[in-house]
Amino acid sequence: MALVVTKFGGTSVGDTDRIRNVARRLVARKQAGDDVVAVVSAMGHVTDELVDLARQICSTPPDREMDMLLSTGEQVSIALLAMAIHAEGVEAISFTGAQVGIVTDGVHSKAKIAEVRADRVRQALRDGYIVIVAGFQGMTPDGQITTLGRGGSDTTAVAVAAGIDADVCEIYTDVDGVYTADPRIVESARKIDAISYEEMLEMAAGGAGVLQMRSVEFARNHGVVIHCRSSFHDGPGTIVKEADETMEQAIISGVTHDTSEAKITLRDVPDKPGVAAEVFTALADANVNIDMIIQNVSEQGTTDISFTTPKDDLDRASSALGKIVAELGARDWQVDDSVAKVSLVGAGMKTHPGIAAQMFRTLADAGVNIDMISTSPIRISCVIAADQIQSAVNALHDSFGLENEDVTAVTSPGCGEGE
Amino acid sequence: MALVVTKFGGTSVGDTDRIRNVARRLVARKQAGDDVVAVVSAMGHVTDELVDLARQICSTPPDREMDMLLSTGEQVSIALLAMAIHAEGVEAISFTGAQVGIVTDGVHSKAKIAEVRADRVRQALRDGYIVIVAGFQGMTPDGQITTLGRGGSDTTAVAVAAGIDADVCEIYTDVDGVYTADPRIVESARKIDAISYEEMLEMAAGGAGVLQMRSVEFARNHGVVIHCRSSFHDGPGTIVKEADETMEQAIISGVTHDTSEAKITLRDVPDKPGVAAEVFTALADANVNIDMIIQNVSEQGTTDISFTTPKDDLDRASSALGKIVAELGARDWQVDDSVAKVSLVGAGMKTHPGIAAQMFRTLADAGVNIDMISTSPIRISCVIAADQIQSAVNALHDSFGLENEDVTAVTSPGCGEGE
Repeated sequence: MALVVTKFGGTSVGDTDRIRNVARRLVARKQAGDDVVAVVSAMGHVTDELVDLARQICSTPPDREMDMLLSTGEQVSIALLAMAIHAEGVEAISFTGAQVGIVTDGVHSKAKIAEVRADRVRQALRDGYIVIVAGFQGMTPDGQITTLGRGGSDTTAVAVAAGIDADVCEIYTDVDGVYTADPRIVESARKIDAISYEEMLEMAAGGAGVLQMRSVEFARNHGVVIHCRSSFHDGPGTIVKEADETMEQAIISGVTHDTSEAKITLRDVPDKPGVAAEVFTALADANVNIDMIIQNVSEQGTTDISFTTPKDDLDRASSALGKIVAELGARDWQVDDSVAKVSLVGAGMKTHPGIAAQMFRTLADAGVNIDMISTSPIRISCVIAADQIQSAVNALHDSFGLENEDVTAVTSPGCGEGE
Repeated sequence: MALVVTKFGGTSVGDTDRIRNVARRLVARKQAGDDVVAVVSAMGHVTDELVDLARQICSTPPDREMDMLLSTGEQVSIALLAMAIHAEGVEAISFTGAQVGIVTDGVHSKAKIAEVRADRVRQALRDGYIVIVAGFQGMTPDGQITTLGRGGSDTTAVAVAAGIDADVCEIYTDVDGVYTADPRIVESARKIDAISYEEMLEMAAGGAGVLQMRSVEFARNHGVVIHCRSSFHDGPGTIVKEADETMEQAIISGVTHDTSEAKITLRDVPDKPGVAAEVFTALADANVNIDMIIQNVSEQGTTDISFTTPKDDLDRASSALGKIVAELGARDWQVDDSVAKVSLVGAGMKTHPGIAAQMFRTLADAGVNIDMISTSPIRISCVIAADQIQSAVNALHDSFGLENEDVTAVTSPGCGEGE
């Protein structure tokens, strides 16, 4: 018997048939003896329809009113799911983010969770209910409805799990776990049984889309064990938890890639103190996200500064640079949107020298030129040409033997075992 | 400059164009110097769609979860209306029933308002906002979302008006006020400028559908002036308020009719104490609403009991009577669903004898047979054959000169004058 928080996304509750399926899974779980909390998103199509209504009325709707509007999406899902459980003859009770005590800051459309007052969930579980919670939403201390932005429902699930000290937070997705590489690109990619928070964060930052960094960070900070698993079958997925002795054998966990970024190079920038600060302050003020930054060795008093940024931010970045490039005294800037990032992630690289050398050698042997490099203690990322990403990922997956469990093995701790 | 609560129903906010129209009206009002609160219903089609979703999932959804589901309808409307006002360059803020302090009892799907904590509305008005409030919904003291049932949005509007001590509560409808008779039946029917709460309640009970009895009762109990007016043009409608000296001239306010009820007669019931109590307790237990009750003079130890009930309740009534008719020792019961009720309403009849006699004479002259009669101090109702209702209503409207303002004149106090 375990205390379990499960999260189902918009696709899993996309129509009434699917909602009934989710209900039956929750009922089976409850009847097997577990205490169950389900966090759900809006039905797949609903959020888009609401956004469309808002756009018909106002080109720049106030964030507060968008939150008021969009939060109805999850509220519909939780009510319908509670009804579907009721139809199976089992008692369920639904709560909005506000009702369940998800207290956030006041930054509408991307609020951060400040606190979870989970008394109401605990009481409902004691009363024997399956508890249904609206993901993606919360309430400020003075009673404004907020939404949590990208990855919000996952974060709600982890926050509720932390609030009630659940044994595990299960996040159901359309893939059955975290893989050593994207299975659509690498045929021999292997599902990872268990991975540490740190590695998972680096995988997510490197482009593994299965879990949002934000929810993994929340889980790490509150010691919540995440089980990332498939909506379509019951097999085990990937456990994300604190690194422990069962994970020591892992050297490299996976290869990730990301094609959503572009590279911008500022050329012939005068090489004087404060110039980088000036550039990135201007970009931050324009709300441009920055990933990697490389400043080349200075020659003849000038230098080149390169950075990568999401393609979605390119317009804002160009506009911000246009305003400062003259006053910086730089020559110009260039945009390259046909780049991709390939990353090697593994906690073992801290204690196994030579990983970087092997990575660069592997890419060279595959005829892949490296454009930029950045590293963390457990990750090495290279920016390369976008059209070489498939051969790069495959070459690295092969070179580090990731298809072979023995090389990178992490012992599976099993579902819900906790830390 | 006035403090005004306005209520727009589901048709008025039925699509984004109409929401924009409502927004423009509110903005014009605000710019003319008034402080404005708007109470809105769900967009016309939305509630039906939500009910349909629920029915797909569960034949008898729990009332609590239906309230969770249906309350999203108004929440969408208020967000969109606030956005539409924002698009006009004016500040607006929306509140759910819970946020605005509509505190109700815990009877889900037909909750009663216990209290209005209107501080938040008052503060938002002081801050210069047009305030948008979700109708039809509230919150129990322990934070459950409730809906108010039939007439709920009108009642919300009146309750908010009471809570902030508004000068007037304007209820916009698809007709332009309360008429001396249904204009679809009586060509010469005349809009009434002002009417007392008591008369309006009797008119509503008699079948005048323009205002819900429930909201009129709430207005009477809290001294809220209602202005019932048209969504389609700006002319004055009908003011509903405390009877005062300006209304003294009124003898008869209007003729109403109702074809939604059926008559049931229990025949040859033993005439002994407690028999009526037994019949109507059984009907009440079966949730059957009763309007008029007539017990005929007893003959030979038995009596006939007739009553009218909404046609919607007929099945439940028959089932309840089937269980008790034998144990009562009555002969049988008969249902007549081709009846109609015509009522004459007017505060003046208290001080003008002979109104009843004139009513019965008028009906007789028109060849209309009277089946049942019931009266209140300011109303006389007759049950007649349904196919005679048009000639009965017209004959009474003529006989009492209702097309002529002089006879039944009530001096119009003008919009928002208060008591």
